[in-house]
Amino acid sequence: MNKINASIITIGDELLIGQVIDTNSAWISQELNKIGVWVNHRVAVGDVWSDIWQALDEESKIADIILITGGLGPTADDITKPLLCEYFGGKLVMDEPTLEHVTYLFEHVFKRPMPLLERNRKQAEVPDVCTVLKNAMGTAPGMLFEKNGKIFVSMPGVPNEMKTIMQDHVFGIIRERFNLPYISHRTLVTFGIGESFLAELIKDWEEALSPNIKLAYLPNYGMVRLRLTAFGEKQKTDQDLDIAFSKLKVLVKDYMIVDEDLTMEQQIGRLLLERKQTMSTAESCTGGYIAHLITSNSGSSAYFHGSIVSYDNRIKKEVLHVQQQTLETVGAVSEETVQQMLTGVLDVMKTDYAVAVSGIMGPDGGTPDKPVGTVWIAAGNKNKIQTKQFKFRYDRRKNIEITAMNAVNMLRVFILENS
Amino acid sequence: MNKINASIITIGDELLIGQVIDTNSAWISQELNKIGVWVNHRVAVGDVWSDIWQALDEESKIADIILITGGLGPTADDITKPLLCEYFGGKLVMDEPTLEHVTYLFEHVFKRPMPLLERNRKQAEVPDVCTVLKNAMGTAPGMLFEKNGKIFVSMPGVPNEMKTIMQDHVFGIIRERFNLPYISHRTLVTFGIGESFLAELIKDWEEALSPNIKLAYLPNYGMVRLRLTAFGEKQKTDQDLDIAFSKLKVLVKDYMIVDEDLTMEQQIGRLLLERKQTMSTAESCTGGYIAHLITSNSGSSAYFHGSIVSYDNRIKKEVLHVQQQTLETVGAVSEETVQQMLTGVLDVMKTDYAVAVSGIMGPDGGTPDKPVGTVWIAAGNKNKIQTKQFKFRYDRRKNIEITAMNAVNMLRVFILENS
Repeated sequence: MNKINASIITIGDELLIGQVIDTNSAWISQELNKIGVWVNHRVAVGDVWSDIWQALDEESKIADIILITGGLGPTADDITKPLLCEYFGGKLVMDEPTLEHVTYLFEHVFKRPMPLLERNRKQAEVPDVCTVLKNAMGTAPGMLFEKNGKIFVSMPGVPNEMKTIMQDHVFGIIRERFNLPYISHRTLVTFGIGESFLAELIKDWEEALSPNIKLAYLPNYGMVRLRLTAFGEKQKTDQDLDIAFSKLKVLVKDYMIVDEDLTMEQQIGRLLLERKQTMSTAESCTGGYIAHLITSNSGSSAYFHGSIVSYDNRIKKEVLHVQQQTLETVGAVSEETVQQMLTGVLDVMKTDYAVAVSGIMGPDGGTPDKPVGTVWIAAGNKNKIQTKQFKFRYDRRKNIEITAMNAVNMLRVFILENS
Repeated sequence: MNKINASIITIGDELLIGQVIDTNSAWISQELNKIGVWVNHRVAVGDVWSDIWQALDEESKIADIILITGGLGPTADDITKPLLCEYFGGKLVMDEPTLEHVTYLFEHVFKRPMPLLERNRKQAEVPDVCTVLKNAMGTAPGMLFEKNGKIFVSMPGVPNEMKTIMQDHVFGIIRERFNLPYISHRTLVTFGIGESFLAELIKDWEEALSPNIKLAYLPNYGMVRLRLTAFGEKQKTDQDLDIAFSKLKVLVKDYMIVDEDLTMEQQIGRLLLERKQTMSTAESCTGGYIAHLITSNSGSSAYFHGSIVSYDNRIKKEVLHVQQQTLETVGAVSEETVQQMLTGVLDVMKTDYAVAVSGIMGPDGGTPDKPVGTVWIAAGNKNKIQTKQFKFRYDRRKNIEITAMNAVNMLRVFILENS
């Protein structure tokens, strides 16, 4: 069984000028990995004829599957379709099913007051040498081409449209066309230990890993995910992975949050669901971001009651009953304040647990005593409150994110130790 | 004056396997653009010797500046440094200033209980043919190489470390080394008109654009940013751009939110600051995301008081005073509920304006009457409330984001019409 390789080509000046972050490639890579296809090259080019052409030439030399996203919009900066037509030696023809679909979308879904424009009609034109892949979520269809045993798929860059085309058509086509190897991952997540100390801790184990298993360190906001990957024959691959993974879990047990590829917020959701318990948040400096993280999980309404985002001190006093005296003496960023915020939000939300945070995220608002990055977090229930001070040293965005991650982690630990 | 081209090479299996989204490239591209350098190629490779080597060869053929991120961590999956050593014909030597910096970080900043590990010391080793670029935020230094008149910079993939090295060293080096052309942008943001209708509206203007000006459409969540870019001699470039931009603003005036490259939340912050007025939010389905958007802006405490995230209906009743009868008869996702949420949050937060949202974000929770994507939004003040129903058709994440964007936009319009 050969390893099947894919390349991703993203087209569009908006990616190269940096106004859009490419989230498509990560999704495509993850999903292809699951079915045993390895993305080992990715290239981004602008809306430039020769650059796109060369990317098609180059990637088809090294990959079996070439996935192309972007460059298919209705506006004049898009040159991909005529180029594909010439590259694969076809001519543009109107695809009637696509035209019907575009017309339907405009009349019944977008409900545009204006009639279908010529440029919208043109989106239903496709090279006569491609297989049309219906785009259920939008007007630009996917297009499948074949050349020298390689397959090429062109899709719009809009994430949900690309995903729909991949799910409805492309994964199935790849499974049919290629004899895919078995690929398998095992992932665990650690918190509170740096990458290098973790590496030291598992050094002997890592050096003894059998050559068909690869280890990756994926650090992010105080967490490090450790991922083992192996290819090969199913039974042996899984067996080897399970043995290596079991040993690894023992080695990192003091730092391990979970032995699956879950986010921190998914993990806390699971703990609460298992215990049929509930939580809420009282947020100052994170401005609702912790509540957003928790509610990003579908089904979170079963355990999340809500949040009081008390950006203004008056809200801390009136809704959460933080004492005026506390704010005057030790200030809003203090252990006492987050303790009182926690008690207050438990009272309002009537949940089993809560977290409360107050801090200075920057770039302004720091003082010599409490520089930017100073944060107090409280996690607890009506009987017990744990607090901790942090000093982060990042920019505003990352300070908010890492504060939220630590808050959720403190609550996770509290739940495990107090339920 | 020649156009100066840059390429970005990102190294790391974590990017190709899709567990990490590359945000570095967008930031690098935006910042290079500002100083007149164009990124016209970007490539991602794994931790594979031959792939990295080939990327260096290929990119140096087409670019003057090659920026390399990733592959410099302290763990065993990183092969970049030995490769660079061989590629540029040097040998690894200990860089004493870097070793001192690493030691300082471990002792005084990270405050590790454990002594410096051999693998941390190794981070201070560099090829003797590079110029070391101090990494103020971390242990892996940046490295500058020169070959055949091209410059190569290798940096760690951790975003804040990469940014610090770019700001402290790389932009200055590029300015010194290259005779940079003048590059300029003009951006405006529209809301509520699709890309194709916008294109139709400005078709004649676009066709008449002088050839040194490029137009890009950047659609995102109901907004379309239109960006004009031009290179050339400063005075003429700015003059041409200003004339074209003035004409464009007249053409799209009915849809234009702002004639700068601002986000929706920056724009509402500006409106409130100008008016010395305040806002708050009452959020059900968005779970704090609107508050997070607003508070992402530094300085938002001047106009944002807070949010009641009322995920549980009991919070809607007890904190926001939504009537039991309303919830029983028309339900939580209804015009009446968001009206009452709005009145309730204005009362609690004592702000000039507020927005309230309630909806079904999916994938579960839909009914035939109120399918997934059904959302009610209210925006207003104590004298007047405007409401609107939406039906979105995305996944949970995008439904949350587009609901938030529409809520902020409704408030923006309300403020403009009622202040």
